[in-house]
Amino acid sequence: MTSIDWNVLTLDADDLLHRLFLICRSITGDGLRRTLNLLREITNFQLHEVPSGTVCYDWTVPDEWNVRDAYVADSTGRRVIDFQQNNLHLVNYSIPFEGTLTYYELAPHLHTLPDLPTAIPYRTTYYNRAWGFCMTNEQFQKLDKKEKHHVVVDTTLAPGALTYGETILPGSSGKEFLISTYVCHPSLANDNLSGVVLWTLLLRELSGRTLRHSYRFVIAPETIGALAYIAGNEQAVRALTGGMVATTVAGPGRFGYKRTFRGDSIVDRSVRLTFRELGLEFTEYPFDVNGSDERQYSTPGLRVPVGTICKDKYYEYPYYHTSLDNLEFVSAANLVETLKIYTLAIEKLEQNCTYRSLNPIGEPMLGKRDLYPKMGGAVKQKVADSSGHGERRYAVDAGNIIFGNELDAIRWVLFYADGQTSLLDVAERIGLPMSQLYEAAEKLSAGGLLEVVG
Amino acid sequence: MTSIDWNVLTLDADDLLHRLFLICRSITGDGLRRTLNLLREITNFQLHEVPSGTVCYDWTVPDEWNVRDAYVADSTGRRVIDFQQNNLHLVNYSIPFEGTLTYYELAPHLHTLPDLPTAIPYRTTYYNRAWGFCMTNEQFQKLDKKEKHHVVVDTTLAPGALTYGETILPGSSGKEFLISTYVCHPSLANDNLSGVVLWTLLLRELSGRTLRHSYRFVIAPETIGALAYIAGNEQAVRALTGGMVATTVAGPGRFGYKRTFRGDSIVDRSVRLTFRELGLEFTEYPFDVNGSDERQYSTPGLRVPVGTICKDKYYEYPYYHTSLDNLEFVSAANLVETLKIYTLAIEKLEQNCTYRSLNPIGEPMLGKRDLYPKMGGAVKQKVADSSGHGERRYAVDAGNIIFGNELDAIRWVLFYADGQTSLLDVAERIGLPMSQLYEAAEKLSAGGLLEVVG
Amino acid sequence: MTSIDWNVLTLDADDLLHRLFLICRSITGDGLRRTLNLLREITNFQLHEVPSGTVCYDWTVPDEWNVRDAYVADSTGRRVIDFQQNNLHLVNYSIPFEGTLTYYELAPHLHTLPDLPTAIPYRTTYYNRAWGFCMTNEQFQKLDKKEKHHVVVDTTLAPGALTYGETILPGSSGKEFLISTYVCHPSLANDNLSGVVLWTLLLRELSGRTLRHSYRFVIAPETIGALAYIAGNEQAVRALTGGMVATTVAGPGRFGYKRTFRGDSIVDRSVRLTFRELGLEFTEYPFDVNGSDERQYSTPGLRVPVGTICKDKYYEYPYYHTSLDNLEFVSAANLVETLKIYTLAIEKLEQNCTYRSLNPIGEPMLGKRDLYPKMGGAVKQKVADSSGHGERRYAVDAGNIIFGNELDAIRWVLFYADGQTSLLDVAERIGLPMSQLYEAAEKLSAGGLLEVVG
Repeated sequence: MTSIDWNVLTLDADDLLHRLFLICRSITGDGLRRTLNLLREITNFQLHEVPSGTVCYDWTVPDEWNVRDAYVADSTGRRVIDFQQNNLHLVNYSIPFEGTLTYYELAPHLHTLPDLPTAIPYRTTYYNRAWGFCMTNEQFQKLDKKEKHHVVVDTTLAPGALTYGETILPGSSGKEFLISTYVCHPSLANDNLSGVVLWTLLLRELSGRTLRHSYRFVIAPETIGALAYIAGNEQAVRALTGGMVATTVAGPGRFGYKRTFRGDSIVDRSVRLTFRELGLEFTEYPFDVNGSDERQYSTPGLRVPVGTICKDKYYEYPYYHTSLDNLEFVSAANLVETLKIYTLAIEKLEQNCTYRSLNPIGEPMLGKRDLYPKMGGAVKQKVADSSGHGERRYAVDAGNIIFGNELDAIRWVLFYADGQTSLLDVAERIGLPMSQLYEAAEKLSAGGLLEVVG
Repeated sequence: MTSIDWNVLTLDADDLLHRLFLICRSITGDGLRRTLNLLREITNFQLHEVPSGTVCYDWTVPDEWNVRDAYVADSTGRRVIDFQQNNLHLVNYSIPFEGTLTYYELAPHLHTLPDLPTAIPYRTTYYNRAWGFCMTNEQFQKLDKKEKHHVVVDTTLAPGALTYGETILPGSSGKEFLISTYVCHPSLANDNLSGVVLWTLLLRELSGRTLRHSYRFVIAPETIGALAYIAGNEQAVRALTGGMVATTVAGPGRFGYKRTFRGDSIVDRSVRLTFRELGLEFTEYPFDVNGSDERQYSTPGLRVPVGTICKDKYYEYPYYHTSLDNLEFVSAANLVETLKIYTLAIEKLEQNCTYRSLNPIGEPMLGKRDLYPKMGGAVKQKVADSSGHGERRYAVDAGNIIFGNELDAIRWVLFYADGQTSLLDVAERIGLPMSQLYEAAEKLSAGGLLEVVG
Repeated sequence: MTSIDWNVLTLDADDLLHRLFLICRSITGDGLRRTLNLLREITNFQLHEVPSGTVCYDWTVPDEWNVRDAYVADSTGRRVIDFQQNNLHLVNYSIPFEGTLTYYELAPHLHTLPDLPTAIPYRTTYYNRAWGFCMTNEQFQKLDKKEKHHVVVDTTLAPGALTYGETILPGSSGKEFLISTYVCHPSLANDNLSGVVLWTLLLRELSGRTLRHSYRFVIAPETIGALAYIAGNEQAVRALTGGMVATTVAGPGRFGYKRTFRGDSIVDRSVRLTFRELGLEFTEYPFDVNGSDERQYSTPGLRVPVGTICKDKYYEYPYYHTSLDNLEFVSAANLVETLKIYTLAIEKLEQNCTYRSLNPIGEPMLGKRDLYPKMGGAVKQKVADSSGHGERRYAVDAGNIIFGNELDAIRWVLFYADGQTSLLDVAERIGLPMSQLYEAAEKLSAGGLLEVVG
């Protein structure tokens, strides 16, 4: 791995989490724009605006939604539910409304979670013209049933645009991967401010590298944003080799991996090998039609295998889609642990070269290239292992000691240099670290014994 | 499943078992004809007569065999072995004989089972001109060795015909399946009067339905009957997609499934999924070259994958091919339980459609079709599951609640609507009941989102 | 198996082990020639000489090496290390040297094994011009550090040739297999004098047989000898169906099998089935790029699947490449046990025919060929198994009893006679001994029911 200062990254992640958390985002609107512009201070990508009314396959971009204020006040004017306190209080995409209602008129517009009585649920009504408020069940229990409440939903729903961000890091291999996240959720930390921050830091990190593959970074509102993006880039999306959707990456729980629909794509295999080489436990989730934007990229007409590495996967933790998914629940340190796994998995994609031997019949003579011990007879000998331990050896060829693992890596790379077997195949079968195989392959290529064919 | 009155079926099965049990059947002859004609009172199929001497590949239809009487009497005229008491006493296809024999002349013609001393074995000599009697070992022990016995085998072996029955229920898919059974066994209940009755009731049931596939129902003597049938229908048999041989379906023991020679044919998979969805334990037997008429249909020149669902499979129960395999051993209730599995497995074949999405890029918008909850944010949320339980909800969209399983079924069917993946594939992978997937697919087809392609 | 007198073979093996053990072999030279000529007294093969300087792909045949004498003497003239005592004392391929050295000048040329203090290690320096001695660590500890030692390495390194042996046993199938061993190791018994002796006795045994496949027997120095052989026979080697390298076949430890790189080639399957049918436990080793000459035959430009059956596999036993791998460690009886496995595995290759049914539709009528019981009804009946035990049977058809296994073998062979499935496929799936299937197939072929197609 290119040397990365993970401590600096953790500070950056923490800073971003705090600067972005309170913004009220939605699938359109100024909160979304403000968030994307703030991220562009960290790393470079382009913004696109898709006008309301644009048809995206079976869907249409809705009117743009913005909120000035929203509350429910009692007869004394005291706000018993207040959007200013927590933007989750307002059902996202609520239509404008003002009126004074009895308890029984108000109640059908209220959402609580009796099973988690201190949490405000997150609810949306993007495509159904309605308004509503969310509150803790404890708040709800205290409502005075005899009181008349004044309700103000001071929102606008008007033609505007849906905003998304995109950039492409170009590589030379002709293969392209998607790195995507969704940015429509308001004050919810693990789902999915954490994914937004990881996406940004990963983009910044990879922007500084010379890459073999191309990476298409997309940040958009969930579902409709992904559909708008696909509609505008259909050929390119269809040509993607694979991808990842970054979401729920900073919780205190287990690492998880939601497979692509193929289950054995290059993305799946790179992620699995990364966890295996790190010796990290993780839960592997089968592909599911529920989930995030992999749902769109995996549809029959596209079939791009897209996976997700998580820490505390969405659906699995009880605070999911509630106000308890906040900055106390996640941590920048967790986020950066997950970022490391994304980075290492991408490095496996990068190192996954296929070689052809330029000396295909018989082994090359390694000895004349100083890649074999000068004194024969001790390789794999138990009582004198290949590091020289166990045998009394003297200075003669100490400068040329080649250790067992390195010799094994060289031999396996040569053995599999058939122009068809990639280093990921080799690493999976042999169990040597992929980076060691890559180093061996590069050394052999430099020595004229191999050529890269893919 | 189309609504079936299983109680009525059980009464019908019981009635048939009792009316047919005592008839002396063989691979030719009037007992066979009488049985088939009696079944034709229950449901409709055609009779065919294949003349003695007809060459069927390596075999030849033998002379027709009929029995008037057969016994062994002692010197007082008392019948110590009597065909009239149980038709198993006479070795099936015994040639005519009359004579008075010493014990030592008689004994080589007698068959008993010392390990099951109260049972008369079932023995045949179709192609070896001989005569013989079967008896319990207890009877055998009582024979007086000094006595001379008078033996009468009053049978006829003369040019005639082999009789079989057949009908085809036509479907529209172009695929055809075989439903076969063998009808040559005399008074033996599980093997195979039970299969004969099941075959008849299954034919009657399917005759009333609109079918997607065609079903070729064949009832014939074992081996030579199947060969005669194949010889007359070779092209049609070779074109069969698969089939089932109904045999030993009403015993008290375990459900069993003898795999087709492929082991993973559409027949195998439908049967396995049926047992799995019912939560029923069963023993799966590998394909074996011993068995029933699947032996003929599976030969290299035909290779039709034919399986068998049993209850107390032949070979496995000790009463197999003995007089203890009688009406006390089997029950009509058992028979109908197995019939239900045959019926359900066939329904899986019927529902195993393949769909193509008419909106292949991106998910269709389910909300505008009332196939998605109006209020977003709660799908898969643990503290507010998709049935609404756990969240305080009010009447607003109660009319539009779509339950989790149904939404899952819809999404999986859409995901797999690639024109190649059948509903059986989907059900096996996902674990949702195939009938629920089928209902979802039909709803989506009706809504213009899918088309059937296979 | 053709009748073999294993006792005679054991005596022969013992004799060869003793006659050959003391010869100082190397990758070239007179010890190698003497060994090969001695083996030619046992069985017939041709010698080939490849001149020094011949280029073999990335390698070059080195100058020929011969030893007249070599020792280290103290100032009294006493030989403290003496090649005459054990040829392992001299590092193989040491260049000529004579001189008087201090302890500190001498020590860097000495090799010992502190972890196995009574063993002399085996070391070589084929391609690095150097000299050295090997000794036990106990000897080494006794060296007088104040003493000056006189060193004599009376060797010659001069243009000459590398010698190898070869013969081809011709068969009719068009398929050819390699049987190879390496003959360059000096006084080391399991690795690899045992392999040399096994190779010789196997060649002698097969030379007397009519064979279906061709067998290419090659005996050469390891690595450079194999490369020289391949360079001179490239097209033939590339066309090989598979092969075996005989090595370390006579130790006291477990049977082992090192897989070919494919893992499921016909060679792998024949070896596995042999062990399974014998009920012998063995350790299966994955293919490894470390090993013997399979390394060369398996390179990308050749890809011949070559496996190795061992008894006490190289690398695995502590005496490997030391003077303790001697005639006390191995035994002729062990060697012959392993030879039996090689022989049986080759017989599986020989019997692995593929048949096509000449009566492909429906089963042939076995009864008229006396391959089926005359009296029907008892096959697979538990209370009267097909051997007749459990049923009171009399003399009538005793002459025609066909036992269950044989009937099963006949039926399975007929079932799989599709022109594509070989007897090895059948044996693996069914579990009947391959030789029994072969006998059944030959009987059916003789009866006009099958033809061999491969």
